[in-house]
Amino acid sequence: MVDQFLEYVEKHQNDFIERLRKAVAIPSVSSDPNRRQDVFRMSEFLIDELKALDAINVETRDPGQQDFHGTPLPLPPIVLATVGNDPAKKTILVYGHYDVQPALMEDGWDTDPFTLVEDEQHRLLGRGSSDDKGPVLGWINVVEAHKSLGLEMPVNLKFCLEGMEESGSEGLEPIIHEEADKYFKDVDSVCISDNYWLGTTKPCLTYGLRGVSYFHLTVQGPARDLHSGVFGGTVHEPMTDLFALMSKLVTPDGKILVPGIYDQVRPLTDTEEKTYDNLAFEMHELHDAVGSAINIHDSVRHVLQHRWRHPSLSLHGVEGAFYNPGDKTVVPARVVGKFSIRTVPDMELDKVTELVTKYVNDEFKKLNSKNTMKIVCSHAGNHWLASPEHWSYVAAAKAVERVYKVKPDLTREGGSIPITLTFQDALKRNVLLLPMGRGDDGAHSINEKLDRSNYVEGTKLLGTYLYEIAAAKPE
Amino acid sequence: MVDQFLEYVEKHQNDFIERLRKAVAIPSVSSDPNRRQDVFRMSEFLIDELKALDAINVETRDPGQQDFHGTPLPLPPIVLATVGNDPAKKTILVYGHYDVQPALMEDGWDTDPFTLVEDEQHRLLGRGSSDDKGPVLGWINVVEAHKSLGLEMPVNLKFCLEGMEESGSEGLEPIIHEEADKYFKDVDSVCISDNYWLGTTKPCLTYGLRGVSYFHLTVQGPARDLHSGVFGGTVHEPMTDLFALMSKLVTPDGKILVPGIYDQVRPLTDTEEKTYDNLAFEMHELHDAVGSAINIHDSVRHVLQHRWRHPSLSLHGVEGAFYNPGDKTVVPARVVGKFSIRTVPDMELDKVTELVTKYVNDEFKKLNSKNTMKIVCSHAGNHWLASPEHWSYVAAAKAVERVYKVKPDLTREGGSIPITLTFQDALKRNVLLLPMGRGDDGAHSINEKLDRSNYVEGTKLLGTYLYEIAAAKPE
Ligand SMILES: [Zn+2]
Ligand SMILES: [Zn+2]
Ligand SMILES: [Zn+2]
Ligand SMILES: [Zn+2]
Repeated sequence: MVDQFLEYVEKHQNDFIERLRKAVAIPSVSSDPNRRQDVFRMSEFLIDELKALDAINVETRDPGQQDFHGTPLPLPPIVLATVGNDPAKKTILVYGHYDVQPALMEDGWDTDPFTLVEDEQHRLLGRGSSDDKGPVLGWINVVEAHKSLGLEMPVNLKFCLEGMEESGSEGLEPIIHEEADKYFKDVDSVCISDNYWLGTTKPCLTYGLRGVSYFHLTVQGPARDLHSGVFGGTVHEPMTDLFALMSKLVTPDGKILVPGIYDQVRPLTDTEEKTYDNLAFEMHELHDAVGSAINIHDSVRHVLQHRWRHPSLSLHGVEGAFYNPGDKTVVPARVVGKFSIRTVPDMELDKVTELVTKYVNDEFKKLNSKNTMKIVCSHAGNHWLASPEHWSYVAAAKAVERVYKVKPDLTREGGSIPITLTFQDALKRNVLLLPMGRGDDGAHSINEKLDRSNYVEGTKLLGTYLYEIAAAKPE
Repeated sequence: MVDQFLEYVEKHQNDFIERLRKAVAIPSVSSDPNRRQDVFRMSEFLIDELKALDAINVETRDPGQQDFHGTPLPLPPIVLATVGNDPAKKTILVYGHYDVQPALMEDGWDTDPFTLVEDEQHRLLGRGSSDDKGPVLGWINVVEAHKSLGLEMPVNLKFCLEGMEESGSEGLEPIIHEEADKYFKDVDSVCISDNYWLGTTKPCLTYGLRGVSYFHLTVQGPARDLHSGVFGGTVHEPMTDLFALMSKLVTPDGKILVPGIYDQVRPLTDTEEKTYDNLAFEMHELHDAVGSAINIHDSVRHVLQHRWRHPSLSLHGVEGAFYNPGDKTVVPARVVGKFSIRTVPDMELDKVTELVTKYVNDEFKKLNSKNTMKIVCSHAGNHWLASPEHWSYVAAAKAVERVYKVKPDLTREGGSIPITLTFQDALKRNVLLLPMGRGDDGAHSINEKLDRSNYVEGTKLLGTYLYEIAAAKPE
């Protein structure tokens, strides 16, 4: 049956591309209030597609309204749909998003971002092609193949598609928690296709994400901004204190100076070390992504370990100080330094906050300043680590070998994808990140693309993954 | 004759206040394009006043147009007028400005800013009352008194009044240089009333200003802003380098760490030290001005020495980093730190730039960063120091004693008043800063005021100063 499926996908690839063309043509930019109707239009497009494929219970949940800088704006619906409900089969929840990043010709696109174009290298160019319309339609292609072939689906599928992912997934989390015992009740595992291969040649399964703890360091002194001519040299200036403190957080080669911060980091075992042996990534890919050779580490192994499994600390900016071009001689009265720590297993978020708070307070005391200082953790999202031994990962790895004739890279990512944790925590189920696109797709950049082969083989992969799940021996 | 003059001023003070009321009613805000016509209206008001007093050669110079964010905006005229041209008399150039700072009721004013109101403490409240319409009208009051009394002026007066002072004196400097050998040819000394008493009780003569050298410290690494999740811990981040460098410029208690920067500072002599003995200033005035007790030094003497005659270094901000409220996890690609050094005699500006450049480069090398760093001095204005022994200062001191029955404080200021240096350099003449208002007038704040007594006694002072010049023995 899987062969019939694979053959169908191969034969109908141009139809699938037509489907993607229609989707890309809807400029569903969630961050632009003038495009909000297009986001709604995109949800209707998906609902129509799902209904045409005899999905059952195609329904929506209304997340209500968004407060857009004081103006209420309706939030696009969460689209829920079920394909098959055989209690004898596993049920896989598929998450994706149908909104996209903004895109304008003026940004430097070579072609109209909302017109799908296939170039000579068979790259399908268009906003949302890879993030995340291609993967979402990949699942729909799988369903279509089965319906057209008169084949039964190997598992039950449940869709959860949102239209606000590029704008912080506003309104989604409460609905997931609310539906955990209802719509999501029978889900056995979750699969998300919304990240990317490590490089450009080899598929991967992603099983870990770093967390992030964000800090606001406020130094306050005068009641108002001061003139540096009149007061310079006579008062403790908040900026001087702030720079003294923030310069003590991390060294130029990336070592975090907060005592104890490395104590909770899980040691690297030989087994884990081996997963870094054959990763499809080269140093020039880092240099290309960054646009210059400012790497701290000289081997792929260490670069990726520092991206995936070691904590890092970045300074982001200062609120309250002078930030425009030009020269202004102000002494800012109250400045807020912003920095964040990327966290990894087994760091505990409360402990991180405690260590940072103690250290910054200790360092501030050493300054003997008469200003006041406050450090708070404004936001903390946990790291995430799944087991690549879980049956969902095993099935996905087998599917990759079958479709791509290669063992997938086992990867993690340095950033956070909050929805991953939300599903894991709300449903208490394993989550698999199974990317369709390549590392150079340019998800949030100009000339976003999805290679034709990634779309077609990716559709095959998603379907094959479901067959491998069904074929696996019960645990 | 001076007694007749003094008596006239005393008797006609309410007329003078009416003149100030008319001037304050014209909202000549130079920074607001919608008020530009009012700035022109204010110039016409002054021209009419001067013509009515038989000033000769009341004329204007047109500084041309301003580029206001891409829109051309006509610049208000420089008003020139001569009162008397007796070659046997000294010629004193009087500078003032007829534009004002913005002011709105919403800013928190207790009364309409453009309606002069006298309160129970005899404070004349209104925008421009003290900065700088009161002092400008003070000179006109002096001329009126002489005309009304049929008295000859003791010196020749030349006026130079501009309407863009609060917006960087745009267009003025070229005209001063152009007219140096023409309109300004016979000027013997310059007098500017556009600063303030040190405190609230005692008049002062101001003979020094600090200079300012402004620096841009640029650190650049990636070709574009990076995601701290993906790249944090793997690349040299420009912000980390910038904070490391800027934290090494000055200590929290105000000591400049750039080696050699103090070497050119003129040593404090016993004579100079004595000028700090009886200054009308108390620590609580610093605390009130700052709004909190964050003073580095505990005596008035040291506070004022650090404001007036020692250099200071202030950090102003960062361009290119995150500056809004909220949390953003960006790694900025290119950041420009802004700081300035207030300079004092005998620091040479080129030497300051050289020392800063060398130090920052040396410190950057120690960081072993792969980013690139550049430090430039974007702007440098020299410090200014006049001799209080000059006949103009001697005359002003005598005038203060005559009108106020007290020896004036000899003060300097921590900030720069660029026009002072421009006149000194273009005309090669002594400049005297002879303030009319008090230290708490709130020149650029809400509820700006000029005390009635400062306006009336100040008018007496300006006239008496001219008599003392005329009475002085020739050098
Ligand atoms: Zn996405
Ligand atoms: Zn995205
Ligand atoms: Zn002024
Ligand atoms: Zn002013």
